[in-house]
Amino acid sequence: MRKILAGIPFVAMLLLGADGPAPEFTKDGRLVRPADYREWVYLSSGLGMTYGPVAEANPARSPNFDNVFVTPAAYRSFLKNGTWPDRTMFILEVRSSVSKGSINNGGHYQSDMVAIEAEVKDARFPGKWAFFGFERSGDPAKQIPTTASCYSCHAKNGAVDNTFVQFYPTLLPVAKDKGTLSPSAER
Amino acid sequence: MRKILAGIPFVAMLLLGADGPAPEFTKDGRLVRPADYREWVYLSSGLGMTYGPVAEANPARSPNFDNVFVTPAAYRSFLKNGTWPDRTMFILEVRSSVSKGSINNGGHYQSDMVAIEAEVKDARFPGKWAFFGFERSGDPAKQIPTTASCYSCHAKNGAVDNTFVQFYPTLLPVAKDKGTLSPSAER
Repeated sequence: MRKILAGIPFVAMLLLGADGPAPEFTKDGRLVRPADYREWVYLSSGLGMTYGPVAEANPARSPNFDNVFVTPAAYRSFLKNGTWPDRTMFILEVRSSVSKGSINNGGHYQSDMVAIEAEVKDARFPGKWAFFGFERSGDPAKQIPTTASCYSCHAKNGAVDNTFVQFYPTLLPVAKDKGTLSPSAER
Repeated sequence: MRKILAGIPFVAMLLLGADGPAPEFTKDGRLVRPADYREWVYLSSGLGMTYGPVAEANPARSPNFDNVFVTPAAYRSFLKNGTWPDRTMFILEVRSSVSKGSINNGGHYQSDMVAIEAEVKDARFPGKWAFFGFERSGDPAKQIPTTASCYSCHAKNGAVDNTFVQFYPTLLPVAKDKGTLSPSAER
């Protein structure tokens, strides 16, 4: 019995690690950059996709990769319901690409970090979703103003609830199965 | 007290989910395809890299993406030591790429599954590492014969212990910091 109970704090830490405290905000409403998002659930990557921050960040040079991660609890909820619960948080990580290095002679692999952005669902936001761009310092990020194009583009084109599930190959079949695709994505 | 103890089985399930029972073998030595590898830790993706299974699987058509995942316990061990513990397991997931779809007009995003391969470290293997290719059926996979090129290429070119850490941007700095890069990768 004592042995079991002694394990509880360790277990609690693991649970926090698995489901995360994210999103976490400062008192003045800035989003804290999560330290462990690379251990969240990976959704997909694109290379040089011609919309949004990737294309804008680096139009002329080598294309960038974008990697998308989501909080584990939100992912499990999506698998069950095909919808995103309150406090869902996505991280979009943009990395430069390299073609020649080590034994690789063509195609592209990932290298340095270019940008980190976040999308958070919270019923307290007007429109429920908000976007944040982290500075290189890693400091907590101010919300991007709701006049920015990310808000209107996600609202109009997101296959499920302001998110680009059409680009996440393991989640698109779930949304189809649960009937949660937006009318525009159904077409 | 009863409340805490009642939570134990649930907690145990979560722990299994987080650190996984992988790798799991059948009695005749085949590797069971892990159901939950998409919830393991993501290491990186490439597009159309010209070595190994991606280039071989689909040389003439659109380039394929390869996504690499590793068991969470092995990842945490690597962050601490810069080395892979016994029972480390990697999944290489190969997916086709698409250029035009939804609002995307250029670059590439991920679509259908092309192949799933695994690399496992186990002291019981001669050479410690073994490779497995899963069939479309998802059945447990036979070990790939040790005469295959994956064994010699990983042994010769892996930046850390038979693995391509040179292509994993978050782990390469760890290996440099811990001094665990192979002599060939140091050059």
